[in-house]
Amino acid sequence: MSQPSLNQIVGWFQSLQSRICSALELLDGAGHFTEDKWDRKEGGGGISRVIQADQIEKGGVMFSHIHGNLPESIAKGLEMEGGGFDATGVSIVLHPANPWVPIIHMNVRYFETDKGTWWFGGGIDVTPHYIIEEDAHNFHLQLKAVCDKFDQEIYVQYKTWADDYFYNIHRKETRGIGGIFFDRLNDDAGYSKEECWQFVRDVGDSFITCYTNLFKQNINKTYTERHVQWRNIRRSRYVEFNLVYDRGTRFGLQTDGRIESILMSMPPQAEWKYDYHPLEGSDEAQTLLGLVKGKDWINGTEV
Amino acid sequence: MSQPSLNQIVGWFQSLQSRICSALELLDGAGHFTEDKWDRKEGGGGISRVIQADQIEKGGVMFSHIHGNLPESIAKGLEMEGGGFDATGVSIVLHPANPWVPIIHMNVRYFETDKGTWWFGGGIDVTPHYIIEEDAHNFHLQLKAVCDKFDQEIYVQYKTWADDYFYNIHRKETRGIGGIFFDRLNDDAGYSKEECWQFVRDVGDSFITCYTNLFKQNINKTYTERHVQWRNIRRSRYVEFNLVYDRGTRFGLQTDGRIESILMSMPPQAEWKYDYHPLEGSDEAQTLLGLVKGKDWINGTEV
Repeated sequence: MSQPSLNQIVGWFQSLQSRICSALELLDGAGHFTEDKWDRKEGGGGISRVIQADQIEKGGVMFSHIHGNLPESIAKGLEMEGGGFDATGVSIVLHPANPWVPIIHMNVRYFETDKGTWWFGGGIDVTPHYIIEEDAHNFHLQLKAVCDKFDQEIYVQYKTWADDYFYNIHRKETRGIGGIFFDRLNDDAGYSKEECWQFVRDVGDSFITCYTNLFKQNINKTYTERHVQWRNIRRSRYVEFNLVYDRGTRFGLQTDGRIESILMSMPPQAEWKYDYHPLEGSDEAQTLLGLVKGKDWINGTEV
Repeated sequence: MSQPSLNQIVGWFQSLQSRICSALELLDGAGHFTEDKWDRKEGGGGISRVIQADQIEKGGVMFSHIHGNLPESIAKGLEMEGGGFDATGVSIVLHPANPWVPIIHMNVRYFETDKGTWWFGGGIDVTPHYIIEEDAHNFHLQLKAVCDKFDQEIYVQYKTWADDYFYNIHRKETRGIGGIFFDRLNDDAGYSKEECWQFVRDVGDSFITCYTNLFKQNINKTYTERHVQWRNIRRSRYVEFNLVYDRGTRFGLQTDGRIESILMSMPPQAEWKYDYHPLEGSDEAQTLLGLVKGKDWINGTEV
């Protein structure tokens, strides 16, 4: 395989968006994605696809490819020179209606400059309203298989990165059961560009299987008002993470990005109750106990 | 009148909390405040009073008085030397159930160091789900009267400060119809400490009248599902402001403050709809048109 060109990467991301939207429409069974194309004044743009349906209550599958000159402030933050850049990627957040189905987030992205710098980034992570050990086990096993194909060492590394990143410091809670997270993946680490690109495609391709499994395992479970309330409380923690810590969200808000695409990750509703504590021993309390860093979801013991 | 001592200020703030809670219970007619006392490891603590009732769906009236040694990082941010400090104040956020009644926020605070530095800060501002020009007019008129007693110049100054501060940059929307906001008020500006303290007490004392008026004007208005949905969308903008920009909130989250007291300002629920635009000419659209900086609510023309 030859080194992937920017065009090939952009094209693949765009087709990934289409494939994922089709798969999700099939999964939902009734809802359809609407599409908004947007342009960025300084160069490039994106396609935001959004579903607001019965099963997938609110979901976004966003593709973008932007380019132009790297703003001074951002170049500084990235510890690099200014100049021309291209950034492209696919971002997904799905908020299902059924509290037994988890929230999922996926992102794959590529960045390059006209000075020859390039890197990939991305990851998949899951935020269950109710942690189901078997689902968590299977999800992490799938991610480990994707990672192992690339490098036997990196699952633990990228899993730890996700634990550290998706963390509500002020709650001392992980956002969910984590997954994998990586950034600035390039040939500095000894991989070829082809190898990195194959890994990123494998991550992107694994999304449909991961989510289909989580969805089908749980979508027929019944739930009551109590489960909905707890789902909404968990959603509020998702809001807190994204608005307080998430780098992509904060970057977008600070740089006058397309607000509706950036805040697509917000849940359809969220609830804040004062000083809420679930009953000891309840499913809700059990879930809270699982929202800690360093859990080994594959072997079921602390890492 | 002699110069107020720290003890007098603390005592007055604590009694303000009690008076406001009593007035709000009377206004709500059914709900009662619960009370949580908390201690801060490094010194001091607070009393969080919370109401979750039918009319005032979620409200907090928080008193705190903390002291200790100023953390290096905070001293730096305040451009001052480290050392001992006291900080005390009352903070209020009320989320009413009826969409015609606005959200209100009030804060009065005092800070001093053992090196003789001191200042007051505070303000009152209102976030209507539906802007009612007459209410906005009366509210600002009340604030102007409070300001005029202190200094004829400062209403415009503190009103502009509120417009600039309570602003969702990413939405290009003010949080509401503003009010007044001030910080670091001390004798540098030529006022005596007694004068500043009198002004801060007048702000604190004006809260009950301001909110009682806004509440009574609107509490008997009927509303439908549509109004509730719009209220929840406006509440989501409140969440965005507080988590993304509010200095007090972000400071609290970053310094391991008491989370439940800091996030008391969060609404009971919030909704995010993708790319939602109210119907042209509707009450909702009319409200959006009013969420701009520099409106002269007293005279009804742009400042």
